[in-house]
Amino acid sequence: MLLAFYFFPPTYYRPMKNRFLLPLLALLPYLSEAQTAAIDRVNPTNWWVGMKNPSVQVLVHGPAAGTLAYSINYPGVKLVKTNTVENPNYAFLDLVIAPTAKPGRVQITGKKGSQTVTQTWEIRSRDKSPKAQGVTDADFIYVAMIDRFANGDPANDKFADMRDPNLDRANPFSRHGGDLAGVAQHFPYLKELGVTAVWLTPVTENDQPLTNEGGTMRASYHGFGFTDQYKIDRRFGGNSGYKSYIQQAHAAGLKVVQDAVYNHVGNTHWILQDLPMKSWLHQWPTYTNTTYKYQPVTDPHAAQSDRKVTLDGWFVPFLPDLNQQNPYVANYLIENALWNVENFGIDAYRIDTYLYNDQPFMNRCNAALLAEYPRLHIFGESSVNNVIDQAYYTRNKIDFPFKSNQPGGLDFVLEGGFLGALKEVGTPAATGWDGGAQHLYQTLAQDVVYENPNKLVTFLDNFDHDRYLSVIGDDFDRYKMGLTWLLTTRGIPSMYYGTEILMKNFKDPTDAEVRKDFPGGWPGDKENKFTAAGRSAKENEAFDFVKKLATYRRDHKVVHSGKLMQYLPENGLYVYFRYDATGTVMVASNTTDKPAALSTARFAERMTGFTKARNVLTGESLGNLATLQLPAKTAVVLELGK
Amino acid sequence: MLLAFYFFPPTYYRPMKNRFLLPLLALLPYLSEAQTAAIDRVNPTNWWVGMKNPSVQVLVHGPAAGTLAYSINYPGVKLVKTNTVENPNYAFLDLVIAPTAKPGRVQITGKKGSQTVTQTWEIRSRDKSPKAQGVTDADFIYVAMIDRFANGDPANDKFADMRDPNLDRANPFSRHGGDLAGVAQHFPYLKELGVTAVWLTPVTENDQPLTNEGGTMRASYHGFGFTDQYKIDRRFGGNSGYKSYIQQAHAAGLKVVQDAVYNHVGNTHWILQDLPMKSWLHQWPTYTNTTYKYQPVTDPHAAQSDRKVTLDGWFVPFLPDLNQQNPYVANYLIENALWNVENFGIDAYRIDTYLYNDQPFMNRCNAALLAEYPRLHIFGESSVNNVIDQAYYTRNKIDFPFKSNQPGGLDFVLEGGFLGALKEVGTPAATGWDGGAQHLYQTLAQDVVYENPNKLVTFLDNFDHDRYLSVIGDDFDRYKMGLTWLLTTRGIPSMYYGTEILMKNFKDPTDAEVRKDFPGGWPGDKENKFTAAGRSAKENEAFDFVKKLATYRRDHKVVHSGKLMQYLPENGLYVYFRYDATGTVMVASNTTDKPAALSTARFAERMTGFTKARNVLTGESLGNLATLQLPAKTAVVLELGK
Repeated sequence: MLLAFYFFPPTYYRPMKNRFLLPLLALLPYLSEAQTAAIDRVNPTNWWVGMKNPSVQVLVHGPAAGTLAYSINYPGVKLVKTNTVENPNYAFLDLVIAPTAKPGRVQITGKKGSQTVTQTWEIRSRDKSPKAQGVTDADFIYVAMIDRFANGDPANDKFADMRDPNLDRANPFSRHGGDLAGVAQHFPYLKELGVTAVWLTPVTENDQPLTNEGGTMRASYHGFGFTDQYKIDRRFGGNSGYKSYIQQAHAAGLKVVQDAVYNHVGNTHWILQDLPMKSWLHQWPTYTNTTYKYQPVTDPHAAQSDRKVTLDGWFVPFLPDLNQQNPYVANYLIENALWNVENFGIDAYRIDTYLYNDQPFMNRCNAALLAEYPRLHIFGESSVNNVIDQAYYTRNKIDFPFKSNQPGGLDFVLEGGFLGALKEVGTPAATGWDGGAQHLYQTLAQDVVYENPNKLVTFLDNFDHDRYLSVIGDDFDRYKMGLTWLLTTRGIPSMYYGTEILMKNFKDPTDAEVRKDFPGGWPGDKENKFTAAGRSAKENEAFDFVKKLATYRRDHKVVHSGKLMQYLPENGLYVYFRYDATGTVMVASNTTDKPAALSTARFAERMTGFTKARNVLTGESLGNLATLQLPAKTAVVLELGK
Repeated sequence: MLLAFYFFPPTYYRPMKNRFLLPLLALLPYLSEAQTAAIDRVNPTNWWVGMKNPSVQVLVHGPAAGTLAYSINYPGVKLVKTNTVENPNYAFLDLVIAPTAKPGRVQITGKKGSQTVTQTWEIRSRDKSPKAQGVTDADFIYVAMIDRFANGDPANDKFADMRDPNLDRANPFSRHGGDLAGVAQHFPYLKELGVTAVWLTPVTENDQPLTNEGGTMRASYHGFGFTDQYKIDRRFGGNSGYKSYIQQAHAAGLKVVQDAVYNHVGNTHWILQDLPMKSWLHQWPTYTNTTYKYQPVTDPHAAQSDRKVTLDGWFVPFLPDLNQQNPYVANYLIENALWNVENFGIDAYRIDTYLYNDQPFMNRCNAALLAEYPRLHIFGESSVNNVIDQAYYTRNKIDFPFKSNQPGGLDFVLEGGFLGALKEVGTPAATGWDGGAQHLYQTLAQDVVYENPNKLVTFLDNFDHDRYLSVIGDDFDRYKMGLTWLLTTRGIPSMYYGTEILMKNFKDPTDAEVRKDFPGGWPGDKENKFTAAGRSAKENEAFDFVKKLATYRRDHKVVHSGKLMQYLPENGLYVYFRYDATGTVMVASNTTDKPAALSTARFAERMTGFTKARNVLTGESLGNLATLQLPAKTAVVLELGK
């Protein structure tokens, strides 16, 4: 009934103006003393005693739940204010939990006339398990699309009571069954590779149907359409599975990055079936998609209307855009962000579609998280093509009218620098004025705009891009060079799953092309590339290459947190150093298709005092550093010695 | 003798370390009491009473001039300190001129034993004639290469006592005879075109030979190799000719931009024949050219050695690089900069090779000029390809370790934006994701990095680049569109001579290809394109187009100083507005090859309240603004009305 009134299938959002207000007015006569009120949902589902911020706003939902007069009688828990909103089925209770409160079950009592409704809500003690450890430039992040990585628990593959009740590995849009248990089973594999942190695509519930709208598939295996922020998707293992996964990760010495989405929700999110108020979403007179253009946000000459479409336009028609300027929405999202850290013990957040969010909201969210968890790292996805726009979304050195407090960010511009350079390795452009390694050099040379570029997460591709190996023309020399750069230059390197076993593909015709199942991740898979025996010789060479560099990086502080000094590329040779008090590592790349002899006199600033070197990749010792022999299309990593 | 010792032909600069010190030591025995001292040069050649900064450092040169004990006995002129340097032929006198001093001839007296040397040096009263008026976004600057524009005085074409004593219009590297009188004779032409300011390539003396070194021509017709900063080249009219030129310009309502070069001098500059000290120049163990790469200056990861080569490497072998960190060099250049303004009455400085200068020096120079002449505009040439590096050289909003105080700059990045867009006008790329007008839009959208982007000087080409019309494929529609953008978007527009009569060409094989003589500038020229009768119909159409837009801009404050609002290009249609309290002008560009109907609903933020418009270029009136008909490849300029 009420649900029916407030449930708008996607196409209904358009004329929301009338569709929303009229039913609401129509409801008024029913909201009388006579109606029986009830509580069917409380969010956050629990909270903790001893949070630095003692306040929490609790959403209470149920038929006529907003018509109740609330009280709480629990020592140390004070109901400061009950907020009611347009929809009488909601109340937002502002609570303050004293540090002296005892963990336990709080009774929330609502009264209306003679009716009394009670709801139990738990406040817990904070546990001491590792959490919010952050990821830093000492880490190497492995990025996996959970549905496509490994199926550790076939029992959770599908649920008849979910909107997409199927599993079909033959269908690229369907669920394939990958889950948290599957990832955890391969922690030894990741550890062997030198990985120190795992970022999975979102694990939050996506109880969305799989639909075909005029040929456009609307899938949710990717996880970016949340339907309940307080549930981990059952098909991945549910809340208890996630807790277990994180405990195992931490026990294995792996950090956990959670992929968060604040900008939008799935169109079957429970709250969309009974919106608290019209302004919960960005509403438009007619359906309005974002332009995906980011410059109206930073352009001093931009029209407000362009800015509004970018920010408030919907990402796609089936992902309704949340209005984070609505304080109830903001509180809801921020508290959920805190809840995930405290409840599960995650170490870092990757934020989806960061630039499309309301930036003052993002600052509040980041500030709330960092106040509670100072080491937590946060890095958002802002897919832009220039460093000014990228800098806008992280702590920066530009006097923008708005200043972001985000500690990190995904370095899309450097991805472009890496790939722009690699695509020209071995071609005549490698020695061009702005060609070859200049693409990489010129990008890093603009780091002055960031407060700390070492906090940016670097990458060569991701689940939305063509796969790295395909972009660089399936060229194994370029492949090694790019991974060498990724793992030795500044930043927090991340690598998309399968790169180490030479998985490749272009996105076209669908994103699913770059999200294939990891061979060996499913019981009965013909191949198992998680094992050396299951990999081809070349795949093993690739795996061993990543492993060697990643473990070297992991074990040598200078490579991840040492200063970076780069030299102007000359004649297609690009040289940089990582250096600190503990040592100096030189990375010399020959991007041409011919062997080269590199005179090192030019690098005296970094090489003076060093007389020998060890080639990290080959183990070879060099007794004379005056001239280095660089093979064609090769990056050499040298640990300098005295 | 001394001259012979200190004159190093270009190839001699290389082993300067030994070549300089040894002769100097060898000289010591001769610098005895017995040697007769003399003064043959004093710079500045004069100074003024009543400058805000009362101090001036006077260079005195002559045989053993540095061995004299100096005194000045002139009321209000105090010799604070006599500085001697490595070369005994120099003294640098620190003077303070009281505001109460009377203009007149100051006797500088030098004594050594029984010898007394006197030298007259004038301090003048400051005249009230217009000077340092600045150029602003209300201006339209015409840029001419003086040797190639018009020969107004054949009597000064060549001088037998100059190192290049010839004139040969058939030789692209030779002098062609253009001069200040020739420019002045065409002030009416420039005024008719709507020009308000004239920037000539440097007029300072370039008494350099024309040489052919192994096929490489070393020419000086372009004016960038100064040989005496206190002389205007006689072939252009000399000092008196320049004064007259500026008086005529100001009388005609035209402002004068002087092209200054601080980074280097010609290798036959008088001071190179007797260097005051080794550190007057940037000396290198072996000849070192700049890399012309600018990022080592701003890159936080740069090596000092790369930075040093960029800044201290020579621009070309025959233009020795001045060491502006040497305070005597700095004072010399700064005082000359002040002297040019005060002596001639120029209104603005264009600074050559701005980024290759020592930036702290440039800040001191700018500060000295602006302290004396607050309205003076200064815009340097920093040829870079990204706004971060461009911002570094002007007042900006980035927290660089070094902060420039330059008020303006030449907008090389926007030139790239204009041309990138125009080259795709009428092609499929015009509607591409990052194509067509996006190049222009995306550049302007990064203006947030500048303190005031309206102070940047904009352009479509210059004497170092391929000519505009050739770059855009000799396409008249693109030609008009680009000029429309130049003359209606933000900034101070400048236009290279001949653009208005469709001069075109690529630089290859030599720069001279884009520096051809203006037809009609020389007595006896077969064609005279300074007159409508001498121009073809199409040339007149071009001339009239520039004239119409330039005069409209000149006469409508909103177009030059109004705010800019630009909208995201959509479907190849790019719309922006200039607006202020006096009005609103809309510029709507159809960059596709098909006519388009543009619905204006999206532009309500700027169009609400306006009901009609006048097409500035056609005169047409529009009574309905709901939909605009935009012809293919056309930019429409509409003055909105109520």
